[in-house]
Amino acid sequence: MELPDHKKPRRKFLQQSAIAGAGFMLAGPLQLLADENNPNTMQQKLRSKGYAAKDNSGKLSSWEFERRPVGDDDILIDIKYASICHSDIHQMKGHWGPQQYPQIPGHEIVGIVAAVGKNVTKFKVGDRAGVGCMVDSCMECDSCTHGEEHFCERGETLFTYGYPDKRSPTGITQGGYATNIVVRDHFAVHIPEHISFQEAAPLLCAGITTYSPLMNANFKVGDKVGVAGIGGLGHLAVKLAVSKGAEVYAFTTSPDKVADIRSWGVQEVIVVDEAFENMQPYNKQLDYMISTIPYQFNVAPYVACVKPYGHFTYVGMPDGFELTFSNIALASSRVNFNASLIGGIPETQEVIHYCADNGIRPEIQIIKAKQINEAWEKVVNKEARYRYVIDAATF
Amino acid sequence: MELPDHKKPRRKFLQQSAIAGAGFMLAGPLQLLADENNPNTMQQKLRSKGYAAKDNSGKLSSWEFERRPVGDDDILIDIKYASICHSDIHQMKGHWGPQQYPQIPGHEIVGIVAAVGKNVTKFKVGDRAGVGCMVDSCMECDSCTHGEEHFCERGETLFTYGYPDKRSPTGITQGGYATNIVVRDHFAVHIPEHISFQEAAPLLCAGITTYSPLMNANFKVGDKVGVAGIGGLGHLAVKLAVSKGAEVYAFTTSPDKVADIRSWGVQEVIVVDEAFENMQPYNKQLDYMISTIPYQFNVAPYVACVKPYGHFTYVGMPDGFELTFSNIALASSRVNFNASLIGGIPETQEVIHYCADNGIRPEIQIIKAKQINEAWEKVVNKEARYRYVIDAATF
Repeated sequence: MELPDHKKPRRKFLQQSAIAGAGFMLAGPLQLLADENNPNTMQQKLRSKGYAAKDNSGKLSSWEFERRPVGDDDILIDIKYASICHSDIHQMKGHWGPQQYPQIPGHEIVGIVAAVGKNVTKFKVGDRAGVGCMVDSCMECDSCTHGEEHFCERGETLFTYGYPDKRSPTGITQGGYATNIVVRDHFAVHIPEHISFQEAAPLLCAGITTYSPLMNANFKVGDKVGVAGIGGLGHLAVKLAVSKGAEVYAFTTSPDKVADIRSWGVQEVIVVDEAFENMQPYNKQLDYMISTIPYQFNVAPYVACVKPYGHFTYVGMPDGFELTFSNIALASSRVNFNASLIGGIPETQEVIHYCADNGIRPEIQIIKAKQINEAWEKVVNKEARYRYVIDAATF
Repeated sequence: MELPDHKKPRRKFLQQSAIAGAGFMLAGPLQLLADENNPNTMQQKLRSKGYAAKDNSGKLSSWEFERRPVGDDDILIDIKYASICHSDIHQMKGHWGPQQYPQIPGHEIVGIVAAVGKNVTKFKVGDRAGVGCMVDSCMECDSCTHGEEHFCERGETLFTYGYPDKRSPTGITQGGYATNIVVRDHFAVHIPEHISFQEAAPLLCAGITTYSPLMNANFKVGDKVGVAGIGGLGHLAVKLAVSKGAEVYAFTTSPDKVADIRSWGVQEVIVVDEAFENMQPYNKQLDYMISTIPYQFNVAPYVACVKPYGHFTYVGMPDGFELTFSNIALASSRVNFNASLIGGIPETQEVIHYCADNGIRPEIQIIKAKQINEAWEKVVNKEARYRYVIDAATF
């Protein structure tokens, strides 16, 4: 099929990018570049390099692998940064079920569009783009056509790493701790110029995962909003809720985070003690609460902080995705308990714009690829302050 | 203290009732009746007789015991009927923690007021009265003064049986499988003349426990409401929701209940199979759902029947009050999950009036005291159709 005229300049840019060696790695670059009219042009598998888990040890190491060719609806992104989410660790360690290895984690991905398929109009080569937790879905069901692709009714939501994908040379999706990624255009979002790549990366999961339930909670300016667990997700929940006008109460088990948290404009920081005594004064005080604690914990004292008939959202995903709590404590609280899973693509784009426009920036530390294992340990030990961002040039 | 004049006719009635032997048993009736001005008149412990658990075997047997004297704010009710709730069985078997025995269960209690304390204005001797799951609370905190005595902020909600009570000669509250009960006036409700005692009894727990969350759900006429578990509670939930204008979908595991359930005006009855395949067509179809299943079960396929962002209420109280479910299933459903515990006294009075006025009647089977053990087994084996009501004259 002949390319439409408006696509041609992009192809030219692609050639230039590739020639400039801007991280665009091809199985056979010369073949791709040789003939614009060659129907095989976009049918080459792509070489990629990154850091993969090779077992469930929680240790990653360098790995070279292949991506699928850039399909008609795909874009190729030359990754600039990918940040570390606690979910990466959970999944690679098999906490959510057995995994296929080697597997490249990473679902907070930003970079530059290096190639586009012939049907793609959403991006052009050279655009700044981001990819979050999913890379495909049926795109036809009610959920998919209403911006909730993460809840595809046909169960075809394809998460960014570790999910079966026949198109992938490794048989599963491979994530963003790598030099590049091929993704269906719809599942990438635009990264505006007025936010840096490294600060945009954490918004692709931590940002949308907290923004979506906060928006759904529909709190009013001045409402009391609690945030439990002030890590990668929690610190963005705090900043987003403060920015949206809430009076924010931050609950942390790390006393050394208090000064940081105060600087983000919260009303109060509560250092949670083992007996939950410090939480007593907040019983039934909050209009809404979100927990980002990524492991099993005693939910009851947190839920009890919400006013009767208010809502509580749990966004952490504990081992085995299993949650146990006292039904009578929930009954006594009269609180509505819900869980939230990332957010759809339109809302992901929205949070990127909202943060870019309103000066909301994650607290980040840039690391090299070889520091990933150390960073993972720090995340597990609650030492991250607050998001590690990997410089993809170091893979 | 001298009795106010307006109380005197009641005292007279009491004398007449007692003389007539209307189930009013006293430690020393002659002493009580001897002198209206005797300050000890209302200070006598009262003899009662009923069926008690004497261990956690789940078997009850006859037991004579004492009730506290009728205090200034108390009424004495000559019990006519008490019905059997699955909670009675759970608690007596120790499913919710170790119990003190002997213990008289029963929190669906109706009868005739046989004596009133000097401060009582809510009832007079001869009134028809009912008692549900609680018999006292602080009456001063925010919850208690706002009709939610079951959520007393000071933790002083006193449940009808098995809870420590210094005033009780046995040291714990003793329930309604007995000939009489002494209760603070506020915690008894009026039973109007146009509903029979035996049909009113189940409303005191099964009725209010389903009515309260249904009202809180605030569904609109024509909304699709699901009811899971069609037993003592569930069948009242169905009748209440139908009466309030909902299009009701009843989920049962008992095929032989289908004809009954249809006769109550539901839209559909779904017989739930082990693989939950029959529930598939209802995925995301209901505006609201209430589950009355009184044991641990796989909540996910039920929650999945509710439309995204709808609400689901769990009113069963499983072993250990502990609930386990998949957090990712809850996230995918986008449903708000809550639990509900009975209802306050004003709302209990409301459901009694609503049922009396609107012809809503539980399906009952009257039994004698000696049939209680057999009835309990039938409740556990899902053979109750749908509430056993004990004739208190047989204790």
